[in-house]
Amino acid sequence: MNDFHVYDTTMRDGAQQEGLNLSVQDKMHIARHLDDLGVGYIEGGWPGSNPKDTEFFALAAKELDLQHATLAAFGATRRAGAVAADDPLVAALRESGAPVVTLVAKSHDRHVELALRTTLAENLAMVRDTVTHLRGEGQRVFVDLEHFFDGYLANRDYAVEVAGAAAEAGAEVVVLCDTNGGMLPHQVTDVVADVLAATGTRLGIHAHNDTGCAVANSMAAVLAGVTHLQGCINGYGERTGNADLVTSIANLELKLGRPVLPAGRLADATRISHAIAEITNYPPSARQPYTGVSSFAHKAGLHASAIRVDPDLYQHIDPALVGNDMRLLVSEMAGRATIELKGRELGFDLTDDPTRLARVTDRVKQLEQAGYTFEAADASFELLLAEEMEGGRPTYFDVESWRVIAESAAAGASAEATVKLVAGGQRLAVIGEGNGPVNALDHALRQAIDQLYPDVARFHLTDFRVRILDQGHGTDAVTRVLIETSDGKDSWVTVGVGANMIEASWQALVDALTYGLRRHGVSRVNA
Amino acid sequence: MNDFHVYDTTMRDGAQQEGLNLSVQDKMHIARHLDDLGVGYIEGGWPGSNPKDTEFFALAAKELDLQHATLAAFGATRRAGAVAADDPLVAALRESGAPVVTLVAKSHDRHVELALRTTLAENLAMVRDTVTHLRGEGQRVFVDLEHFFDGYLANRDYAVEVAGAAAEAGAEVVVLCDTNGGMLPHQVTDVVADVLAATGTRLGIHAHNDTGCAVANSMAAVLAGVTHLQGCINGYGERTGNADLVTSIANLELKLGRPVLPAGRLADATRISHAIAEITNYPPSARQPYTGVSSFAHKAGLHASAIRVDPDLYQHIDPALVGNDMRLLVSEMAGRATIELKGRELGFDLTDDPTRLARVTDRVKQLEQAGYTFEAADASFELLLAEEMEGGRPTYFDVESWRVIAESAAAGASAEATVKLVAGGQRLAVIGEGNGPVNALDHALRQAIDQLYPDVARFHLTDFRVRILDQGHGTDAVTRVLIETSDGKDSWVTVGVGANMIEASWQALVDALTYGLRRHGVSRVNA
Repeated sequence: MNDFHVYDTTMRDGAQQEGLNLSVQDKMHIARHLDDLGVGYIEGGWPGSNPKDTEFFALAAKELDLQHATLAAFGATRRAGAVAADDPLVAALRESGAPVVTLVAKSHDRHVELALRTTLAENLAMVRDTVTHLRGEGQRVFVDLEHFFDGYLANRDYAVEVAGAAAEAGAEVVVLCDTNGGMLPHQVTDVVADVLAATGTRLGIHAHNDTGCAVANSMAAVLAGVTHLQGCINGYGERTGNADLVTSIANLELKLGRPVLPAGRLADATRISHAIAEITNYPPSARQPYTGVSSFAHKAGLHASAIRVDPDLYQHIDPALVGNDMRLLVSEMAGRATIELKGRELGFDLTDDPTRLARVTDRVKQLEQAGYTFEAADASFELLLAEEMEGGRPTYFDVESWRVIAESAAAGASAEATVKLVAGGQRLAVIGEGNGPVNALDHALRQAIDQLYPDVARFHLTDFRVRILDQGHGTDAVTRVLIETSDGKDSWVTVGVGANMIEASWQALVDALTYGLRRHGVSRVNA
Repeated sequence: MNDFHVYDTTMRDGAQQEGLNLSVQDKMHIARHLDDLGVGYIEGGWPGSNPKDTEFFALAAKELDLQHATLAAFGATRRAGAVAADDPLVAALRESGAPVVTLVAKSHDRHVELALRTTLAENLAMVRDTVTHLRGEGQRVFVDLEHFFDGYLANRDYAVEVAGAAAEAGAEVVVLCDTNGGMLPHQVTDVVADVLAATGTRLGIHAHNDTGCAVANSMAAVLAGVTHLQGCINGYGERTGNADLVTSIANLELKLGRPVLPAGRLADATRISHAIAEITNYPPSARQPYTGVSSFAHKAGLHASAIRVDPDLYQHIDPALVGNDMRLLVSEMAGRATIELKGRELGFDLTDDPTRLARVTDRVKQLEQAGYTFEAADASFELLLAEEMEGGRPTYFDVESWRVIAESAAAGASAEATVKLVAGGQRLAVIGEGNGPVNALDHALRQAIDQLYPDVARFHLTDFRVRILDQGHGTDAVTRVLIETSDGKDSWVTVGVGANMIEASWQALVDALTYGLRRHGVSRVNA
């Protein structure tokens, strides 16, 4: 327990993010994921401050069987002028059953005076009394010094005195918090070095991203001697967020040579980062360091051949180390080498037939000239490859026609779609209603085929983007639609192009369902 | 021109981001925004590498009247074994008309051998020859040393030799690029200090965010002595993105005391960051440092009164410095100060009537909560202000109803719209055809009113963007449509929001024609 460790505060400080709300069950799921990843400590919330957090600790004590991590309860030092043993909020920490209590304390003189409305001396007493009391009751104590860096710059001696007092009273770790997030790494380096020299106690770092430097500030603190690092999965948190714990862990293990997870667990980072994003309902950023879907994506172009020979020249780590994958994007400059590599990635070997490879490359170029883009639409690209490799485009139904009517109405507007198609040997004509034209088409199409292909009930449209291409050229403009679809587990993007936005959406919708059914291994039903 | 400066590469390296595609017109708009912000240099693309970038430089030479920034063309050193003066890609740089050329060169020995397939000596000759040639032709030259940091770690002496050769041949700035993005700040500090001491030349930094440290690496380089900083607005870029130029600039000006923009321009950072996000169609991150809508948002709770007494205790800078606002999370996005400022910008003085200012602010907040955005839709905002200031919304016609039918057809798809309205005392019912639903509505609407308001014949729709808000939240999603309209001289953007994409488009269309007529000083025709 004295080793360097990482401490997750997703369920407490992360939950301060605007719009992020976690239920007790969400927290149970997140705690299991964090334990699975192998973090040292998981802060579960502030028992006593609200009923949900109190309930979480009660449930965790009964049902949360952590294999690796230790649960921590967050709370504040006792009130001014009171006694820790009698403080009801301190009692809630004692009763939480958490082996570790992380106490937040003030170390910035102005905050003591303005927010706590007490004296600097009484604040010191509050820290000593609360730490001593909880230690006496058998709990381990960490102390978060709120606004520490700003406090240090305003009144260094007082800030250092509070850090020393916490350690003397029995706090295992004194955590320096950049609560307002305004620091840059060189400042963190200097402050940590000075506090370490002045107190000789074990220090931790808690950084926010207001200067875009939360991770770098954490690394600077580690290099200056802290041995406890706090953060939130995916960088959740108030304002600009906390230090992203996934990026911090990957940097610690792969860049600074400090293992903080049990061996091999880092390879689950991408999966766990995305799984927690599903729980918070904040889509994971495609550009998140290490775990984003774009983080090892290359617009190959000219360099495709060099990437093939030595991928290490073009990526800072092997993506498999964090459970991610290299991806080559089929872009406007796509040449045969890119198409070939991309084909291999999707499970198609194009090497043995140069004529076919040339034909596919030409077709991609032609389609991109017409406005398609495949770099963001892997699913449509896979259907195109399948068409070329398997002697025909995969289809599950044959479209005869579609029509949409959208009109103004008293309450908003309405949309109705008619779809006529042949599937399973039957001609089907159905209508669908929706709050918009694409929604109506989507409903009609599903309704037509969901008896034959029940899997479509699991697919839902999660994102939809429209662009006008060649804008400025007036009526020549074509519309490109990108649709993202999810089956609750995976998601895929399809593309449609046309002068008519509804037509482009229809193409992307048909591709979306076709790709989904193919991915689920469904066979076409004929008469 | 020898001062510390920032260099934007949004239109070249930023455009490498997966799914980000910029048209020539997009680039013209972005360049104007960047110039308005006051960055020193704007990299427009790679003329000669693709027709779009060549077209951009041709158009920029004719129509882009930059007030502050200098345009740079990106390109590579000449091919191995050739002569710079005869290289067609070097010719394209010469002919671009850009006053600055930024040449990318290899400085990593393995990349020279594997990607360029030439010798280390020939690579040095390529750098010297190309720089010397372009300088001789009267262009200023910056040199980007690709993969510099990895190259330095693999073969320090060669990397330093290339840097020295570029400078000796006449490059004004030698830019050290962390192309794979794997560095941490302490490494950047060491490498920059060594290269600076070894070459004595002017250095720049180009960082990627693969360790979550792009901004911090840029700051470390500045503290170690570089005087040229590259980045992309909003951190766009390949994989995890480039250093966010907005955050970098704010850190430089507010944290390191290095002014890089003309006085006062930083206060436009939030507006410009968001306006460019609308062009790229990548929603601005709510948690983006400095400019995110959540970046100065406080879950007030216990601290509300302390925040009110002394907000500086709870935020790292005054948000007005970057054109953002503190928000206590009861309210949504806009603050009074912003509304007042924006109003003044549009010619409305809101200062003398605090009640009205509060009412407008409330209304904007309500509308933004419903999905509207006014940052990129000044025309709709002006109509809203006019409504509040002039006792009613400006109108030229009263809409009774609209309907659109879009359907599949043998050749593509067709669309037909019916619009019923009252204008000039007459009830009008007209139909319009078009290649898409919005086009059909646009045609019908114009046809209905062009006798009464001949100016509308001069308006044309030049861009159209659709975004689904609250993605991931399934059926609650609303659609936001932004329409850009031009009268051949000026252009303006309007916004519409609705569950139905066609309804949202209709709102934006009506606003577009209304704003245009108002701008042309046309009066409403009554019976």
